[in-house]
Amino acid sequence: MALIVQKYGGTSVGSIEKIKAVAERVIETHNEGNQMVVVLSAMAGQTDGLINMAKEIDPNPDSRELDVLMSTGEQVSVALFAITLKSMGHDACSLLGFQAAIHTDELYGKARIHDIAVDRITENLDAGRIVIVAGFQGLNARGDITTLGRGGSDTTAVALAAVLNADVCEILTDVDGVYTTDPNICRKAKKMDFISYDEMLEMASMGAKVLEIRSVEFAKKFNVPIHVRSTFTKERGTMVVAETKDMEKVAVSGVAYNKNEARITIRQVPDQPGVASRIFDPVFKAGILVDMIVQNTSQDGFTDLTFTVPKGDFYQAMKLVSDVGKDVGAETVLGDENIAKVSIIGVGMRVHAGIAKKMFAALAEKSINILMISTSEIKISCIIEDKYTELAVRVLHDTFGLDQEHAKEENF
Amino acid sequence: MALIVQKYGGTSVGSIEKIKAVAERVIETHNEGNQMVVVLSAMAGQTDGLINMAKEIDPNPDSRELDVLMSTGEQVSVALFAITLKSMGHDACSLLGFQAAIHTDELYGKARIHDIAVDRITENLDAGRIVIVAGFQGLNARGDITTLGRGGSDTTAVALAAVLNADVCEILTDVDGVYTTDPNICRKAKKMDFISYDEMLEMASMGAKVLEIRSVEFAKKFNVPIHVRSTFTKERGTMVVAETKDMEKVAVSGVAYNKNEARITIRQVPDQPGVASRIFDPVFKAGILVDMIVQNTSQDGFTDLTFTVPKGDFYQAMKLVSDVGKDVGAETVLGDENIAKVSIIGVGMRVHAGIAKKMFAALAEKSINILMISTSEIKISCIIEDKYTELAVRVLHDTFGLDQEHAKEENF
Repeated sequence: MALIVQKYGGTSVGSIEKIKAVAERVIETHNEGNQMVVVLSAMAGQTDGLINMAKEIDPNPDSRELDVLMSTGEQVSVALFAITLKSMGHDACSLLGFQAAIHTDELYGKARIHDIAVDRITENLDAGRIVIVAGFQGLNARGDITTLGRGGSDTTAVALAAVLNADVCEILTDVDGVYTTDPNICRKAKKMDFISYDEMLEMASMGAKVLEIRSVEFAKKFNVPIHVRSTFTKERGTMVVAETKDMEKVAVSGVAYNKNEARITIRQVPDQPGVASRIFDPVFKAGILVDMIVQNTSQDGFTDLTFTVPKGDFYQAMKLVSDVGKDVGAETVLGDENIAKVSIIGVGMRVHAGIAKKMFAALAEKSINILMISTSEIKISCIIEDKYTELAVRVLHDTFGLDQEHAKEENF
Repeated sequence: MALIVQKYGGTSVGSIEKIKAVAERVIETHNEGNQMVVVLSAMAGQTDGLINMAKEIDPNPDSRELDVLMSTGEQVSVALFAITLKSMGHDACSLLGFQAAIHTDELYGKARIHDIAVDRITENLDAGRIVIVAGFQGLNARGDITTLGRGGSDTTAVALAAVLNADVCEILTDVDGVYTTDPNICRKAKKMDFISYDEMLEMASMGAKVLEIRSVEFAKKFNVPIHVRSTFTKERGTMVVAETKDMEKVAVSGVAYNKNEARITIRQVPDQPGVASRIFDPVFKAGILVDMIVQNTSQDGFTDLTFTVPKGDFYQAMKLVSDVGKDVGAETVLGDENIAKVSIIGVGMRVHAGIAKKMFAALAEKSINILMISTSEIKISCIIEDKYTELAVRVLHDTFGLDQEHAKEENF
């Protein structure tokens, strides 16, 4: 008898019909002799509807009360799901964040889970019930409802799997696994059987929206195996697991891209100690996340500084940097929204040489100019003109043989 | 500085615009130097929408889970209301049933409040906040959400006023008070300045939908003054209070009616000990509420038994009584759905003689036949043909001078 935590997203429970289909699937797995904890998101569209009501009152609604409002979405899902299971003759019990004792910190809207007291869940499991937990919500030390931020139901599921010591945490969604790259761009994209937590983190942070990034961090920390699979088929999906020796045989596991960044360059900055800190100070204070930063070696006491920010923060960042640019005596500040980031990801990079060179050469062969480069232990990212994004993704996918059945040996 | 509990119904908070208007009213009362606890119902239409979803899954949805579902309606109201108050610059805090520590018994869908631990409410009041409590919901000893049944928000408000020792419990609604009778039927109906708890109970049980009956019982038990008034004006409404000596000066305070009953007559029942009990046993077991029961003096060892049941239960009751009628050897069972009950109500009846005679005479004068009569200490009810309901109400209203400014002296 296994203990399985399953999480279904908003589209999977988006209507009464879909809820019934999911209930049948849950019952089938339960009838195979498994204990089941089911984590649900709000029905598709509900969360946006609730936010819109709040914003009609106040564009910046009070964060404590917004969480009270938002958490009703999951409350509706779990109640309807429990009613469905019971109407099908299966004993079930819904638990909200406060009932499942999901304790979080104080940060409304983006709370982090501190601990979960599992007594009530295990009592219900032991009584043979299917336990349905509202995703996305918890309770802080003041006894207030908190929410975990977008995608928080993934985190709820992984955290429950961790504390319950579940055999697997299944994330059921509208895609059937994690792909070597975006299948909408590259028809040759292949579903991966396995991916390591670190690779998944790099993929997720690049906008592969299969799994919320914090849930992967959580899974890695507590070594929870995640199975990403389709709600609508029984096919095996992708296992997100701890790294194995085998994984390093493949140099590159996936190609990711991100069109949601913009670039800012400050030209001819006087190269003095503390100048970078002065430039970034107002940007950080405004809560803008700076991704890539490149500073060239200085010439004649001046240097160029380039960095990227989310597109949504571009205009604010330009304003702030232009002001501070004058203060530090820089020549000019340039902005560019028409950029994209393409990355190759793979734990094998640590043991394979020449990967970066191969990437640059492949892009050069298609006359794609590289505007910025950044690297980590298991990722190489290049900023390019955004019109080349799709071409670059396809070229890199081919170059590293990700369409091959046994990519392992053929990467090099 | 007074402590005021205000309750607003679903139509009063039925849209963002209405929520804003209510918020302004609450702030005004708060700014007059009062501490405020505001109890809200779900936005009009929400509760029905939620029930319909559940019934789409199961016509008889699981009661525990239905309460989880239903309680989201009030959760949405209080969150939106708190967001509104805060956007207007007033500190506020929403509390759900579990946060306001409203402890109930186990009966999902119609739970009764056991006790309320007010610490969290008073802490927030002391901090100068307007406290917004979700009506209709509580928590049972298992830690499950319960709801108090239709109109339960009234009960929440009165219970809070009782435990907080509030100066008044204001019920704000879409009518401006309690009337001597239904103004839709009788244009001469007058708003009452005062009504006693007992009179209000009789009015409420007759279908005067201003106040939920359990909330009046609660108010009577804990001597909480209730002020029924309009959400949309500042006019004084009707105070529902403990009986005073003055009140007995008026023989009749109001005229009520109920078209929602049907009559069942069992003819020629052998008059033996235990026969009434045998007849009603299946009806009670089916959970059907029998209102009026009349048994005539028997003749030749046989008697007729007549009683009324809610119209919705009429066919089931007829079936049950027909079956048991055969068993006990009754001649026949007759049913009649075209009846109505008209009642006159007043604590003054206890000290004024001849009220019943005056009522019967007034009906007779208009050729309205009385089918059944029942009396209590402060009420006389007659069953009549339902087509005469409006006429009977108007005649009785006139007969007892309820349209007079100083009805007190003129009743007799």
